[in-house]
Amino acid sequence: MNPVPAATRQLAQFLVESRWPDIPAAVRHEAKRTIMNFVGTALGGCCDIAIELAIRALGPFFGSAQATVIGRTERPDALSAAFLNAVSANVLEFDDTHLRSVIHPAAPVAPALFALSELHRVSGKDLLHAVILGVETECRIGNAVTPAHYRRGWHITSTCGVFGAAAAAGKLLRLDQQRMVWALGNAAAQSAGLIESLGSMAKSISVGNAARNGLAASLLAEQGFTGAEQAIEGTYGFAKVMSDEADLGAVTDGLRESWEILANAYKPYPCGVVLCPVIDGCLDLRERHALAADRIATVTVRGHPLLRMRTDRPDVTTGREAKVSLQHSVAAAFLYGAAGLAQYADACVVEPAVLDLRRKVVVVEDADVPVETAFVAVETTDGHRLECHVTQSRGTMARPMSDAELEAKFRGLAEYGAPTLDAGRLIQAIWGIDREPNTARIIKTTAPSVR
Amino acid sequence: MNPVPAATRQLAQFLVESRWPDIPAAVRHEAKRTIMNFVGTALGGCCDIAIELAIRALGPFFGSAQATVIGRTERPDALSAAFLNAVSANVLEFDDTHLRSVIHPAAPVAPALFALSELHRVSGKDLLHAVILGVETECRIGNAVTPAHYRRGWHITSTCGVFGAAAAAGKLLRLDQQRMVWALGNAAAQSAGLIESLGSMAKSISVGNAARNGLAASLLAEQGFTGAEQAIEGTYGFAKVMSDEADLGAVTDGLRESWEILANAYKPYPCGVVLCPVIDGCLDLRERHALAADRIATVTVRGHPLLRMRTDRPDVTTGREAKVSLQHSVAAAFLYGAAGLAQYADACVVEPAVLDLRRKVVVVEDADVPVETAFVAVETTDGHRLECHVTQSRGTMARPMSDAELEAKFRGLAEYGAPTLDAGRLIQAIWGIDREPNTARIIKTTAPSVR
Repeated sequence: MNPVPAATRQLAQFLVESRWPDIPAAVRHEAKRTIMNFVGTALGGCCDIAIELAIRALGPFFGSAQATVIGRTERPDALSAAFLNAVSANVLEFDDTHLRSVIHPAAPVAPALFALSELHRVSGKDLLHAVILGVETECRIGNAVTPAHYRRGWHITSTCGVFGAAAAAGKLLRLDQQRMVWALGNAAAQSAGLIESLGSMAKSISVGNAARNGLAASLLAEQGFTGAEQAIEGTYGFAKVMSDEADLGAVTDGLRESWEILANAYKPYPCGVVLCPVIDGCLDLRERHALAADRIATVTVRGHPLLRMRTDRPDVTTGREAKVSLQHSVAAAFLYGAAGLAQYADACVVEPAVLDLRRKVVVVEDADVPVETAFVAVETTDGHRLECHVTQSRGTMARPMSDAELEAKFRGLAEYGAPTLDAGRLIQAIWGIDREPNTARIIKTTAPSVR
Repeated sequence: MNPVPAATRQLAQFLVESRWPDIPAAVRHEAKRTIMNFVGTALGGCCDIAIELAIRALGPFFGSAQATVIGRTERPDALSAAFLNAVSANVLEFDDTHLRSVIHPAAPVAPALFALSELHRVSGKDLLHAVILGVETECRIGNAVTPAHYRRGWHITSTCGVFGAAAAAGKLLRLDQQRMVWALGNAAAQSAGLIESLGSMAKSISVGNAARNGLAASLLAEQGFTGAEQAIEGTYGFAKVMSDEADLGAVTDGLRESWEILANAYKPYPCGVVLCPVIDGCLDLRERHALAADRIATVTVRGHPLLRMRTDRPDVTTGREAKVSLQHSVAAAFLYGAAGLAQYADACVVEPAVLDLRRKVVVVEDADVPVETAFVAVETTDGHRLECHVTQSRGTMARPMSDAELEAKFRGLAEYGAPTLDAGRLIQAIWGIDREPNTARIIKTTAPSVR
């Protein structure tokens, strides 16, 4: 382990001293894009079965009506709202991704802040600032332990997200340096979440807890509840216990100068990230050649070995499985010219035309093809060969989603999960959030009862 | 790792199939002793600063008045009550100890059950049965990963306790086998707690969460919220991710035949466990020789190297530090003929007579002395040498606390934390809990407002 003796305190000092005027304009704008994607994914996921069951199980223990559950009529206490909104934002596998650490940054951080905004008045500037610092915190801690931490089996969005939520909430609560150290210590005591949970609803528990428990960590520290002084770098601290290797310099090097949120990416399709270049290729061929599905004899996809290992699943039967099926993704993309939420709904997964086309899809492993790229080749029934080489998939840093694309994604998500919502008004409110004196007004408009 | 392919499911099957008539009488009685010690330590700890601050920070988010906080007037929702009672029971370092795993078994398990007992009617037999199964679950999982898990830096009471709470709550909720598997999976997703937190209040967060989150894990599973199928033994499950070595046979071997609760021990003194034989020796010498403190010229304690390493602290100033100070423990034991809560209060730690006697205490390291034993020798001012060799300290399996000693401990704890309580009546209720049709009646009598 590359040690930094006072990593926790240096990070806390940065968080406490950071001022809004120090934040570059591009960083501020990226925070708005992160919030746009967060609110959109939460609207899309707000009626997922995991949310429904969580509310049924935990609803009897909710506190007084304090905070909004995005897209829903329930108003639980702020901690429970933070839990539920983090679950909604993450459950569709459509969230943002910090590619270096593979953290989905917004789901743990943003819900803690919107929940606080309904307890105390929080301006848009303060909320954006806190989002930026929360993302900085979780992604830097993630960078320090990546890839050994994830490889060991930790769900890094959950394990590092709790620090991000604590840091962000601590900023809004105006904690002093000692209390910010304790907030990070109180977060470390709650860092949890296993890869083994992926594929079951339990993944949502650790993501929800990251938001809830990070917020609680800071609320406790605010009252003087002490945490470990060296929660990250200590002998029995987060880095040593939860990773086999760590470079703690990644937590502290270049603080104030570089901004991790600038490396936040937004998924264009609600599926496993390795499928994105494949889908890009299918959509491109379909459009470029006006290619009807019945003209397709075979589709051959050549890609990095990880692509086959993770997504060679010709026989999936549910939307959840289809999100990691190459055959389904290719078939649906060619049939519908899209790979959105409708294409990963259970109904689409069992459609005869989809099943038919899936059988024509072949995947070829090629270690020389980088994981963010793919080759897609179609043999047509009349003997033509059409090819596409995707060198950078949409939504990566080299080919980022534009603001307009993010807006379109938002509209699609809102239509899917909260169809009666005035999405356009909400989009305008989010682009203008830095001029909003009271962000509770924005989050409240996501709940149907308040419209 | 010694694998057991279906450890999680085998454990779940045992939990679901276990019947009260199968539980031997000695096991049932030990469960009562565990509850006696739990309620006592919770009464003793109920006014600790960690509880006060937790209520100040989290109180605004408590749900409706559902459940008792032992020794206090607040009535939060059941999940919050489980959290707070686990904190109270553990915060004084006076709780029970499963010596093989060093788990403190009651703190995570019992609060989840008493909280449930105020939501649905729970008989004393059912509660005892669930305590036994919860302790069995957490200690077996602890046995499987000990000592590598603790050595890596995990606070094993917290990390394994969440499984115990889930199993015990799942039993009361009458989960079927599949749902019990999910409950264990939902617990695994929340397993957390670092050794780094010890010495700060953050330790209490992970202990409290073990109870709260274990209960939530089962409530979620009850509603069909799915968890990992192989949460313990899976490739990215608890054992592999959170321990460098594991023997999963310890989870399943001899289920139904051996009972871990029979190996539960109860601390006689509220301090580090290595100090127990030393204190035994001091109290023995004092009583046997009617030894007044002013006759002591020097005290020499000879013990295992761990004793010096952990407790050679001549200059402590607070009760919390004194709990791991050999010098303080020896001085207070000789001066007061006791090593109870009063002797570890802040006031006692700065008393001139204690400070004076502390300076006369010498610790000698001897690798040939087993850690559970100690030699104590006093040179008197008139030139005599008095010696005591403690081969087994009070409260270990070889010299267990008697029922009467547990009662005395309970009275002392109640006097300390809840002096207006009718301790005698509560003691009788706990010994008779197997005849109680509604255990909520017992737990309610621990709250001052209901008396």
